[in-house]
Amino acid sequence: MFPRLDLDRASDVPIYRQVHDRIRELILTGALRRGDRLPATRELAGLLGLNRTTISAAYDLLESEGLIQKHVGRGSFVLGEARSSGPGLNWDELLPEADVPAAPAPGSPDVISFATSRPSEELFPLDAFRLSCEEALAGPNAASILQLGSPGGYLPLRDYLLEQARRTGIARPGDDVIVTNGCQQALDLIERVLVRPGDTVLVEDPVYPGLKNLFLHAGAQLAGIPVRRDGVDLEVLQRLIARGRPRLLIVTPNFQNPTGATLPVASRLAILRMAHHAGLIIVENDIYGGLRYEGEDVPPIKQLDESGDTVLLRSFSKLTFPGLRVGWVVGPKALLARLTEAKQLADLHTDQLAQAVLLRFAESGRLEAHAARVRAAGAERLRAVLEACERYLPPGSSFTRPEGGMSLWVRLPEPLDAGELLGRAQAAGVSYMPGRYFTVARHEPGALRLSFAGLPPEKIEAGLAILGNLFSSELARARTERFEPAQAIV
Amino acid sequence: MFPRLDLDRASDVPIYRQVHDRIRELILTGALRRGDRLPATRELAGLLGLNRTTISAAYDLLESEGLIQKHVGRGSFVLGEARSSGPGLNWDELLPEADVPAAPAPGSPDVISFATSRPSEELFPLDAFRLSCEEALAGPNAASILQLGSPGGYLPLRDYLLEQARRTGIARPGDDVIVTNGCQQALDLIERVLVRPGDTVLVEDPVYPGLKNLFLHAGAQLAGIPVRRDGVDLEVLQRLIARGRPRLLIVTPNFQNPTGATLPVASRLAILRMAHHAGLIIVENDIYGGLRYEGEDVPPIKQLDESGDTVLLRSFSKLTFPGLRVGWVVGPKALLARLTEAKQLADLHTDQLAQAVLLRFAESGRLEAHAARVRAAGAERLRAVLEACERYLPPGSSFTRPEGGMSLWVRLPEPLDAGELLGRAQAAGVSYMPGRYFTVARHEPGALRLSFAGLPPEKIEAGLAILGNLFSSELARARTERFEPAQAIV
Repeated sequence: MFPRLDLDRASDVPIYRQVHDRIRELILTGALRRGDRLPATRELAGLLGLNRTTISAAYDLLESEGLIQKHVGRGSFVLGEARSSGPGLNWDELLPEADVPAAPAPGSPDVISFATSRPSEELFPLDAFRLSCEEALAGPNAASILQLGSPGGYLPLRDYLLEQARRTGIARPGDDVIVTNGCQQALDLIERVLVRPGDTVLVEDPVYPGLKNLFLHAGAQLAGIPVRRDGVDLEVLQRLIARGRPRLLIVTPNFQNPTGATLPVASRLAILRMAHHAGLIIVENDIYGGLRYEGEDVPPIKQLDESGDTVLLRSFSKLTFPGLRVGWVVGPKALLARLTEAKQLADLHTDQLAQAVLLRFAESGRLEAHAARVRAAGAERLRAVLEACERYLPPGSSFTRPEGGMSLWVRLPEPLDAGELLGRAQAAGVSYMPGRYFTVARHEPGALRLSFAGLPPEKIEAGLAILGNLFSSELARARTERFEPAQAIV
Repeated sequence: MFPRLDLDRASDVPIYRQVHDRIRELILTGALRRGDRLPATRELAGLLGLNRTTISAAYDLLESEGLIQKHVGRGSFVLGEARSSGPGLNWDELLPEADVPAAPAPGSPDVISFATSRPSEELFPLDAFRLSCEEALAGPNAASILQLGSPGGYLPLRDYLLEQARRTGIARPGDDVIVTNGCQQALDLIERVLVRPGDTVLVEDPVYPGLKNLFLHAGAQLAGIPVRRDGVDLEVLQRLIARGRPRLLIVTPNFQNPTGATLPVASRLAILRMAHHAGLIIVENDIYGGLRYEGEDVPPIKQLDESGDTVLLRSFSKLTFPGLRVGWVVGPKALLARLTEAKQLADLHTDQLAQAVLLRFAESGRLEAHAARVRAAGAERLRAVLEACERYLPPGSSFTRPEGGMSLWVRLPEPLDAGELLGRAQAAGVSYMPGRYFTVARHEPGALRLSFAGLPPEKIEAGLAILGNLFSSELARARTERFEPAQAIV
């Protein structure tokens, strides 16, 4: 039986059009299928109490759209075959192989997670944020914030950042600022503009996986520079520069992710000398610089670089709200012009609401007040994680002692494998990132990253107690097993 | 004379540290330069009224940082050469050639601009937007909006979009949704995952420059399909499919940019058949679908595609606020998983404040109310631009008659060149985009795009009166010149 057609005689839409629309719906939703015969125009007109020409007009329109076909003397049929059917594309074949290793599953929400390098939600100053939103949208600028913007960034924010960079001696006269979706996009734009497949890029080893995977995906050759207590090993850097013609050096000067290492000023100056001599571009990824809990700030490489060539990346994300994706690049105008073109192709421009709200948050002094609270909390958390590492990790473990940032790097004694133990740690209620996610070339099975900045001290302590217990018992088991005589094979 | 050092004896910072900090500042700001001799420790101690060991401690620290060097018996010298100096990198050599043609200068703000395809700021419902912001941040969710998010998008928004796509028959069981920074980033992610250098990509000709430049930059071979009144020429499409093995077809089904053309349902079905037969991936860039001012909506290709393989791109930008960069992709899960990985490498995730506010704007019904106003204004503007084209363009001109969207495509009679005339148009107070920005292969010197959606009817009329005048007088001049006898060369 032909389905009922609900028509609305009071509507402004002509009746023939309504008939058309209803039948079209039936076809598109599959209620009518290929080969189904529509009622004859006279028949349907009778059923609906309409004139036959009304039905004919609807059928004509359906036919012109390719949805039905009229066969003289046989009636009108639904063109089922007009819709794609049968097996579709073989996506497995069409898609390239995955080249990004999957991160470990986050585990249940109750898990104490040292896995993510992010700030604590409890510290978010929600009222100050709401007020910044309100103020940003209260002004006469509101409409222009919501309108299409410029690839280089929201101009009032760019002006603010450039002025700040000039005042602190970071930006030189030949420099400019562009806004990106956090530092990750800045790295992506740099990759697009400066790196061709086969180019050698020098990075820290271990390094942040989002950096490693981005450049590997782009076909770059990564050369890892081991990270010591004081940052990258300068002798290895010197050898790598001498060996090939690397294109870029990407370095995280403060509280490197994952090790927490900071480069002393002498090393920064040495890196500048080497890079300058070799014509190497330095990308200074200073994402954690605002998070110093102890000791004194060290001047950025960019500030020490009289040539002005260093490319500095900074971001609001780690210090304020990572859910808002706003970072920026300070660097030579010639390069920034090209990054801006790449930005336009990537996504036109960065979200302007986030830019305007963060500008208001910064200009109002709320950012500085929040940063002070974040640093005070960070100092407590850093103390807690260092004390807990000291107390709970099994003998033979070592760990870095950062003065800020979000993470430290633990090395468990042999034969412990942090990757293998993760499942059991999660089952016991604690998560972390095994070292292999950060490895460029030198895999350390016993290494793991502990991100402590997002956890209150009591959770840090509780989490490390559980980890320490697991690692110690596993170590005891492994050492006993090692001395157990092998069974004779009979 | 050695500069004065301002010390604060009441400060908590130890005096040796203050001496160190002041001298470091002098070095980093260039007040002290390479080779400058520092006062002897005894001398400076006397000048400042301090103990000599205090000065020695400061100098030791400066030396450990590589900022000064002590020579026994000669004193301490600033290590000017430690800072990079002399000529820096040659950025012109390091940077690849620009491959994105620069857009025309916007001209002065008083110019009536038909150049940009964007909505009218005057229509922005600022109060409704502010309320949506407030409500999005009022809930218990506020902190999680500001926290690091997921590469696939803010979950409540994804759920909303997927539910909507399922309800309207657009998403099939094998489909998923991911959020991107507008459609531009969706195209970029598709390029990253699906296109390798040398791959053939089928696009409309003329086409949106941000699409053309993105794929050219990625090393794709673009094959342009001429756009007729009813969208892409199906015979040419068929030939192009038969000729090579194109990887992707990117098609804008509704109110194509720049022509305004819309594909009738029969053409959509024909495209599906061809693609299905050839194993071609269809990317349906439906950025303007919500902007129909006349006639009836045509079902998206995605909805007509029973295989579910079509990849649909949509966005809030054109219908609401382009300053907020939120678009989305509906497509097969296998593909979307890979796009999500690419998204994470590109910029971690889309700004969550924008996602949460737009979700609130949509859920509250404000989006639909705003869309109705935008469409009513669009209908007026469309009428105005069509009438003004009719009235003012010189005889021999032709132009498209879209039923929605933001742009129409004008062809001026020979020998007018829209690119050459732009400067004079801008001087006369009107701007537009010459056809060459949109050309894939078939350059039409007389073609130009008029984006009318951002201008009120009276400006549209005034702008076209100026353009018509310029074009007509230029045409008259050109035709006179053509008949002027060439001067004899003597």
